[in-house]
Amino acid sequence: MEFRVTARDGGCAARCGEMGLPHGTVRTPAFAPVATRGAVKGITSEQLLACGAEFLLANAYHLEISPGAEAVAALGGLHRFMAWDRPILTDSGGYQVFSLSELRKVTDDGVEFRSPLDGAPMFLGPREATRIQNLLGADIAMAFDECPPCPCSREVAAGAVERTLRWARVCRDVHGRPEQALFGIVQGGVNEDLRARCAEELVRIGFDGYAIGGVSVGEAEELRDHAVRTAAPLLPADRPRYLMGVGFPPDLLKAIGEGMDLFDCVAPTRMGRNATAFTPDGRLRLRNSSRRADPRPIEEGCDCLACRLYSRACLNHMFRCREMLGPILVSIHNIRFYARMMTQAREAVRAGRFTAFRETFVSRYLARKEDGPCSTH
Amino acid sequence: MEFRVTARDGGCAARCGEMGLPHGTVRTPAFAPVATRGAVKGITSEQLLACGAEFLLANAYHLEISPGAEAVAALGGLHRFMAWDRPILTDSGGYQVFSLSELRKVTDDGVEFRSPLDGAPMFLGPREATRIQNLLGADIAMAFDECPPCPCSREVAAGAVERTLRWARVCRDVHGRPEQALFGIVQGGVNEDLRARCAEELVRIGFDGYAIGGVSVGEAEELRDHAVRTAAPLLPADRPRYLMGVGFPPDLLKAIGEGMDLFDCVAPTRMGRNATAFTPDGRLRLRNSSRRADPRPIEEGCDCLACRLYSRACLNHMFRCREMLGPILVSIHNIRFYARMMTQAREAVRAGRFTAFRETFVSRYLARKEDGPCSTH
Repeated sequence: MEFRVTARDGGCAARCGEMGLPHGTVRTPAFAPVATRGAVKGITSEQLLACGAEFLLANAYHLEISPGAEAVAALGGLHRFMAWDRPILTDSGGYQVFSLSELRKVTDDGVEFRSPLDGAPMFLGPREATRIQNLLGADIAMAFDECPPCPCSREVAAGAVERTLRWARVCRDVHGRPEQALFGIVQGGVNEDLRARCAEELVRIGFDGYAIGGVSVGEAEELRDHAVRTAAPLLPADRPRYLMGVGFPPDLLKAIGEGMDLFDCVAPTRMGRNATAFTPDGRLRLRNSSRRADPRPIEEGCDCLACRLYSRACLNHMFRCREMLGPILVSIHNIRFYARMMTQAREAVRAGRFTAFRETFVSRYLARKEDGPCSTH
Repeated sequence: MEFRVTARDGGCAARCGEMGLPHGTVRTPAFAPVATRGAVKGITSEQLLACGAEFLLANAYHLEISPGAEAVAALGGLHRFMAWDRPILTDSGGYQVFSLSELRKVTDDGVEFRSPLDGAPMFLGPREATRIQNLLGADIAMAFDECPPCPCSREVAAGAVERTLRWARVCRDVHGRPEQALFGIVQGGVNEDLRARCAEELVRIGFDGYAIGGVSVGEAEELRDHAVRTAAPLLPADRPRYLMGVGFPPDLLKAIGEGMDLFDCVAPTRMGRNATAFTPDGRLRLRNSSRRADPRPIEEGCDCLACRLYSRACLNHMFRCREMLGPILVSIHNIRFYARMMTQAREAVRAGRFTAFRETFVSRYLARKEDGPCSTH
């Protein structure tokens, strides 16, 4: 996989890059909306393109449960199945298998569990996750990892690191699709030395890119920042660095400042479905009665479908009467907001003023606004 | 309101027309997707335009409950509120007030009821319904009528006709927006003489167009056909005729053959949300397990978003895992299917071969197919 750093900020570790993939180039820093089951909830591919989405994240675990990787492959692969011909990254399902399934048995080969859809017995390990992702045919596949719960003891975290490394080697060995990139995942919880060991060992195995996993699982913000600060500098500068499952706008900008390139998070779509819009002035809660007669768009000057055509009052009405267009429109705005923030971040890096950009952005975003302070951003 | 009959079939009462309204021309026969609360569930205006929707139906009762007609007017009117700048027709809420509300008291002035949203006391009669519709500013407003339940005694049907006529006169008198068309509604249930009396009296009062109401409320198909056959010829040939709440594809074509011009129905969107697609070969149930590996689109050759981009297998998967894009895509297909059927009907009328078109269409549509016979079309 081709990855070219095209600009460095100078004042911090932030950088711009271009990741050349079978389905196009992703300009980094880049954010992937989440299409867990092959669709960003309620949003069509045309709408995603109009939002400026660079790439999408789908999930091997969920797609194996339904419709099954073999079925997707028989239908022409994941891009065709999802009607998305830009890059896709698939998560391996390591996180999901531990957090969502009724576990049956965990061995060094993988995890035996029951399908949450119909209770059928299933098995997922590094071989299976890699085979599934080869079949799905995303542009980027992730190694199968063990993501321990948070908080967890140092012993559990260390065990997860060893298993993650053992599994990473298997994934690297059995990965059978040369045009598909394979990324390794750094685990280690909040333990600096475990993160470092995991990162260094993954680099030794050699991957097309490296992810920091096991964050955004309930740990304190400071601990996450620390994990990123520890691991990021240990990852090769000439390979993309992916921070999994993060996050809210200030979190993304902070991580970009640490040299991270790729992000995914359910926040724009999940918050959108819950009537919360992201704006430069923080979160806007569209269910608030103060929006009932508000003729303004979510965000003045935004070029998204929701802001071009619909008032806050109309969106408030839609959420009040559970009209499904409300969740869709606010999701569209939020995806556009995240994509625009990434574009602005790239411009700031190229201009060598990323830190100033971030400070201005975050200070406006977190200022006490009509919706009250945002303790969690 | 301008209405021009542009073609007559010759072999039956079917005709083509052009209805000139403040927000554009509607070519008839035409079908309106239902946007009860100001949105076609889950579908954006851009998507509706791409489907070829000629006009939309919204509902005065629901919009008065939320966000309120005054609020919509203050926001610039219903077209702006809904982000739809093509024609809109608003139903008066007569049907809803009798069928959905906790009724408090019915008098000759109207109906006292409680808002289903918050229990607030509300009153809707001919004056209120007309004022609300004037405020909403749709291209076409409907007179406030009493729609009796089905079955009902002749006495109840007769009482509803008298009240409907009394209310129609009030609506005509207080209607305060000259550019907005006002349609009268023929009631009378399954009683030929009551339908005739109601139609003749409405014509005497004088409206811009005439609707046949109180159908599709549970009556047998034969009785509905009879009601249409009775009333349609009594309505002025130079005014549009609107069959309310009908229906499935064969029903629409039958009514066009009787000289009806306008239609609305929740079928394309409600059935779409329930995973049922309309096709030239009848209904297609996308939840059926036989679709699980089916790479074909819903309908070969259809130019809608769903058929251009997504397989039946993908739609089956979306419904299996309750992904909201499934209901949206099948709704889009169904709206496109109805719009195309109307286009084909207009072409057939212009070519003087409507009856042959209808027979071919219905016979293919109702033929026993893989999903089994369709007793209700």
